[in-house]
Amino acid sequence: MLVTGKQYHTVWVKDKNTIQIIDQRRLPHEFVIEDLKTVDDIVIAIKDMHVRGAPLIGVTAAFGMYLACLNAPKNDSFDNYIKNSYEQIKATRPTAIDLLWALEKEMAAIILGKSISEKIENALKVASEIREESIKQCKMIGGYGLKIIKEISEKKKGNIVNILTHCNAGWLATVDYGTATSPIYAAFEKGIKIHVWVDETRPRNQGLLTAWELSQQGIPHTIIADNTGGYLMRQGMVDMVIVGSDRTTFNGDVTNKIGTYLKALAAKDNNIPFYVALPSSSIDWKLKDSKEIPIEQRNADEINYVHGIDENGKAAKIRITPKESPAVNYAFDITPSRLVTALITERGVCKPNKAGILTLFPEKNG
Amino acid sequence: MLVTGKQYHTVWVKDKNTIQIIDQRRLPHEFVIEDLKTVDDIVIAIKDMHVRGAPLIGVTAAFGMYLACLNAPKNDSFDNYIKNSYEQIKATRPTAIDLLWALEKEMAAIILGKSISEKIENALKVASEIREESIKQCKMIGGYGLKIIKEISEKKKGNIVNILTHCNAGWLATVDYGTATSPIYAAFEKGIKIHVWVDETRPRNQGLLTAWELSQQGIPHTIIADNTGGYLMRQGMVDMVIVGSDRTTFNGDVTNKIGTYLKALAAKDNNIPFYVALPSSSIDWKLKDSKEIPIEQRNADEINYVHGIDENGKAAKIRITPKESPAVNYAFDITPSRLVTALITERGVCKPNKAGILTLFPEKNG
Repeated sequence: MLVTGKQYHTVWVKDKNTIQIIDQRRLPHEFVIEDLKTVDDIVIAIKDMHVRGAPLIGVTAAFGMYLACLNAPKNDSFDNYIKNSYEQIKATRPTAIDLLWALEKEMAAIILGKSISEKIENALKVASEIREESIKQCKMIGGYGLKIIKEISEKKKGNIVNILTHCNAGWLATVDYGTATSPIYAAFEKGIKIHVWVDETRPRNQGLLTAWELSQQGIPHTIIADNTGGYLMRQGMVDMVIVGSDRTTFNGDVTNKIGTYLKALAAKDNNIPFYVALPSSSIDWKLKDSKEIPIEQRNADEINYVHGIDENGKAAKIRITPKESPAVNYAFDITPSRLVTALITERGVCKPNKAGILTLFPEKNG
Repeated sequence: MLVTGKQYHTVWVKDKNTIQIIDQRRLPHEFVIEDLKTVDDIVIAIKDMHVRGAPLIGVTAAFGMYLACLNAPKNDSFDNYIKNSYEQIKATRPTAIDLLWALEKEMAAIILGKSISEKIENALKVASEIREESIKQCKMIGGYGLKIIKEISEKKKGNIVNILTHCNAGWLATVDYGTATSPIYAAFEKGIKIHVWVDETRPRNQGLLTAWELSQQGIPHTIIADNTGGYLMRQGMVDMVIVGSDRTTFNGDVTNKIGTYLKALAAKDNNIPFYVALPSSSIDWKLKDSKEIPIEQRNADEINYVHGIDENGKAAKIRITPKESPAVNYAFDITPSRLVTALITERGVCKPNKAGILTLFPEKNG
């Protein structure tokens, strides 16, 4: 998508030895591109959220396995280095399933390589494919979600469709287009009148990334505190909710950024449709019960300190909490399927349950 | 309550010409006492939230009318000055009903004064009475709420009772004890094992005042982002919710800090009791429909900028939002009575509806 009028992706191959990403910690105040050359670089980038969002974590992890192949000793220790790298990247963040999915695809491709150079080649090829696939999937999600927005717009006789979103499931969370934002971009392109309510999304304020994204594309939006959505819904100021997902179970329970569940409850209470946009790589086909999904607990300092810019526009951080008071920082919650209107996937829209998902992914039957 | 071991109230008469308050904008990082000598001082203190919380706004407004009497010209213009002061103070904040209630009590007392000096005397007397009454009411609320906590503690066989609260309905929001916190203080004093989940409460972060209050009294607590409560409830980590109220209608709809409604929905969804602690001065006896309650919209810069301390411990503020993105800042929402388990008032606990409220306040019948 556009950054000051120029097309960007969130991750790309710069040259044989270098993967480049947008360092999202510096946004929305500063646009910085970062070079990643080693597995350690990849691990830090994922763990410390230079890149975030389930699909992008997956793609970045895949490139991590390519860098692992590239940097591994070209001798008997190669396999061991790869295995360690796999474990290291896998341990960065526990909740998003795309990470595991991408790592496993990479491992399969690397094993198939008959020589070390073929292993390297395979790793790059698969990572690049996962990247391209993500772009395509997000584009498809946009098309299916567009229909939903269009219907609401028609019902409203062309009046502004107010869409609420939580966290950033935008192009910054993927490679391009985003998941939850892809239908928004598609609708805007079609000239449908829309306005987006952007949840700030404490403690990491990923909503500010969404706001930045939307303003770069010229889409009307307003930032709100996470507490505000329920009020807006009761006032009739929200027509639909779209969010992304870090892991959705086969029965349609949706793990997403902490606070999603609260918005889903409010949407239900006000008869507002609540959509989850996700590529199938975010579906956990194995888990029976969403209670088994590991919920990441991050450092409490993400609550204690807030990042921004000072009066001179320089990056700054301040402490907001009293030092005597502990804080806890759960990163995700689980929205039960009963609160979800439908899933928007790269293959279409379905009910959030096994039967619904199987209509789009029949190969997962059995 | 205690501040570094010493007893304080939030507002008191220092001398004939001076009302003192704790300037809550500086908390939790700095404890500053402020002198208020004029109506303008009072107006700024309420509007800019040096003092906040419905009951404390009421008491401070009452002292404002005393300062108005004191500073009014002692001639024919006296009445006019009083009327203007009344209007000025009334316009500070629209949602909390205590403000109107206290101002009307003051006006009645001032009118009854047969001379200017008697008017001044009456104004001080009534303001002091409202202040004393608030302390007593909060103490009573604590006693009634204590019973509820005690019952839960007994059901849990003495295991820790986890209480979630939103915003600050603590002693800082009243004169002493608080409303939502008063039962917590009472339970702690009785040796009941409790722990409080403290919602940060963006955008003004009044939860940090609650955290500071609780840590000053030595009560176990943990700060959480506003997004977190729903997750904790689903995990069985919350036994009850207690919040305050800025205005509760006769039919039990509760206006309180924005975000309260979302927590009430989550409590309902998880069968967790949701209590609202309030003095009867927060009940709007006249309004038929909570939709008529004016919801304050505050400056968007309360979202754009965050206050805290820098690495040297000095007060600092930073901008967090991108300048290109607008923000809106609604300060309150309305929780419908169907989500409220009960109201805890100075006269006891009742169902959140007219019949329930009338059992405690029969004089309001008709």
